[in-house]
Amino acid sequence: MPLPDLTTDLGGLTRALVDLPSESGREERLADAVEEALGALPHLTVDRLGNSVVARTDLGRPDRVLIAGHLDTVPAAGNLPSRLADGRVYGLGACDMKGGVAVALRLAATLPAPARDVTYVFYECEEVEGDRNGLHRIAAERPGLLAANLAVLMEPSDAGVEAGCQGVLTADIVVRGERAHTARSWKGVNAAHLAAPVLQRLAEHRPERVPIDGLEYREGLNAVAVRCGVAGNVVPDECVITVNARFAPSRSAEQAEAYVRGLFPEYEVHVTEVVPGALPDLEPLGDLVAALGARPRPKLGWTDVARFAALGTPALNYGPGDPSLAHTAGEYVPVEQLTECEKRLGEWLSRARRGSAAGARARAVRQGR
Amino acid sequence: MPLPDLTTDLGGLTRALVDLPSESGREERLADAVEEALGALPHLTVDRLGNSVVARTDLGRPDRVLIAGHLDTVPAAGNLPSRLADGRVYGLGACDMKGGVAVALRLAATLPAPARDVTYVFYECEEVEGDRNGLHRIAAERPGLLAANLAVLMEPSDAGVEAGCQGVLTADIVVRGERAHTARSWKGVNAAHLAAPVLQRLAEHRPERVPIDGLEYREGLNAVAVRCGVAGNVVPDECVITVNARFAPSRSAEQAEAYVRGLFPEYEVHVTEVVPGALPDLEPLGDLVAALGARPRPKLGWTDVARFAALGTPALNYGPGDPSLAHTAGEYVPVEQLTECEKRLGEWLSRARRGSAAGARARAVRQGR
Repeated sequence: MPLPDLTTDLGGLTRALVDLPSESGREERLADAVEEALGALPHLTVDRLGNSVVARTDLGRPDRVLIAGHLDTVPAAGNLPSRLADGRVYGLGACDMKGGVAVALRLAATLPAPARDVTYVFYECEEVEGDRNGLHRIAAERPGLLAANLAVLMEPSDAGVEAGCQGVLTADIVVRGERAHTARSWKGVNAAHLAAPVLQRLAEHRPERVPIDGLEYREGLNAVAVRCGVAGNVVPDECVITVNARFAPSRSAEQAEAYVRGLFPEYEVHVTEVVPGALPDLEPLGDLVAALGARPRPKLGWTDVARFAALGTPALNYGPGDPSLAHTAGEYVPVEQLTECEKRLGEWLSRARRGSAAGARARAVRQGR
Repeated sequence: MPLPDLTTDLGGLTRALVDLPSESGREERLADAVEEALGALPHLTVDRLGNSVVARTDLGRPDRVLIAGHLDTVPAAGNLPSRLADGRVYGLGACDMKGGVAVALRLAATLPAPARDVTYVFYECEEVEGDRNGLHRIAAERPGLLAANLAVLMEPSDAGVEAGCQGVLTADIVVRGERAHTARSWKGVNAAHLAAPVLQRLAEHRPERVPIDGLEYREGLNAVAVRCGVAGNVVPDECVITVNARFAPSRSAEQAEAYVRGLFPEYEVHVTEVVPGALPDLEPLGDLVAALGARPRPKLGWTDVARFAALGTPALNYGPGDPSLAHTAGEYVPVEQLTECEKRLGEWLSRARRGSAAGARARAVRQGR
């Protein structure tokens, strides 16, 4: 199913994207449609890796901007097909992040000669394990495709700038006891009972608020699962509490791990995942931030901004849709935000550079300094 | 597969029973074999209901004793086929309770004219929900088959007398919170964290020890399961703690329920099952207890003794096998205990009554008093 003309209304384009389901791992049809639509545009060079599509202008501009959006969504929750109501597009992925993808597609189609070269990346498998992530594959196989002076992740951020992102740590705290029949429970040690102090410590924990460059990164530490139980008549010998920590981007993965372990020194802690965040790093993005016209907020969730930060590319989150609606059955994106995002990004891409660090460097080079 | 000659060795008979798998609900082949073996004995009248088999002598004796054993087992745990080692029969159900069934079958076959009439009951589905229990069905459809002056449940009790049984209560304590994304956890209320005081209260609870007729019933209150978790990045909005209470037979079901609810007055408590126990009631069983030669102990688990108590029939637990091995992969029954149980029960069944309440009543009737 081909996409509608990319230059028509953004709401209709978003709906068409929603109505091409693309749960993680099943992005093929949508990737085909995106590749076909962009391939028809003479000002773009299009590459494909798996179900990720990369389209570039190559105008010899001194700056290159990367604009990225993931094609995949979480599984459907009775929220297909799309519908338009009260100026909002409802449906699976409308907010996270087919609205952002629609804006990026529209920019790609309508800006044949931007003042900055642009690399548009539409990638697969953002909602699942990091090693399946399309950006991960591109970085590994064709790193040159990701080269840019700065990157914009079109993650939902309510059409505002969300800077950096927090890191995530997941760990299992294992409390061990000893099995016994419940009719003779004193012969055992109840692991569920022993887990009480762990949960109490989590309840009493006051996460920190870490100010960085005037932004407040509010951390979090939560039990997200408790698994315990052998049988209805058995004193359980194991209770596993899975905790999810969100940590400020000023902490390294090692520091985050030490922090969580330090809270539970007497328990068995298995860290199953730890991914550092990204510092806001707005200095080299000042020109863009000003153009996007909103006071930057800190990004509290983790996004691929961290991946670009690791590659040395300053990046920010900017996209339509309320991030707190992501992954909810009722997610939607306001058409007004789609239009605003397209307008602001489009204007900035079309405008001559002024005073950015990269621009200054480029000018310095040209002036023989 | 027919059973071996019931008069041959008890260890061999137990092994044959183990090697006829009879997980709850799948007792048909074993019930067929039992029905066939007992049907061949001219001194017994045999009835069958579902996969339960009832065999009776009808000698006009003034007393009738009921000897019961369940045919079913819990699911296999890599413990089939049976094996004999160090004087023990190992294998699924060897302890709970094919050893006891073997003893009962042997008594049925080798005592054509006991001094007391005997009703042997081999029944299905003891290990599952109470309304599938074979005794439940017989009591509902042919209650006359269960009429007796006293009953012996051949549940594993280490070849000693275990009197009465404790009651069981199962309840879910539900702790509610409010969902949120873990990156903005302060927007929610973590139900797992709120569950800490429930588990702590269980940890600190000191169950009572209730003396009844010189026996100490030691109660228990345990979390047997904790279920909590929505997704790895979601603050959970519900935590369910399943508790299993064992209560002394002096408490009614209502008292047990009030007791547990009283420990958690501020929480949502859903009682999902409550089954009262059975008082030891050894007075009318004095003659039998003396014959079995062991100082009675309290039965801490729940057994069908409670069902007979509810029918007004004094009952006790007496059978080969260590009850703490029941439902374990390594369960076994010592051949020595099989032999001892057969000998003591056989001698008592063969011996003229003396001084039991029932006997005194019967004598009084005969003597015209």
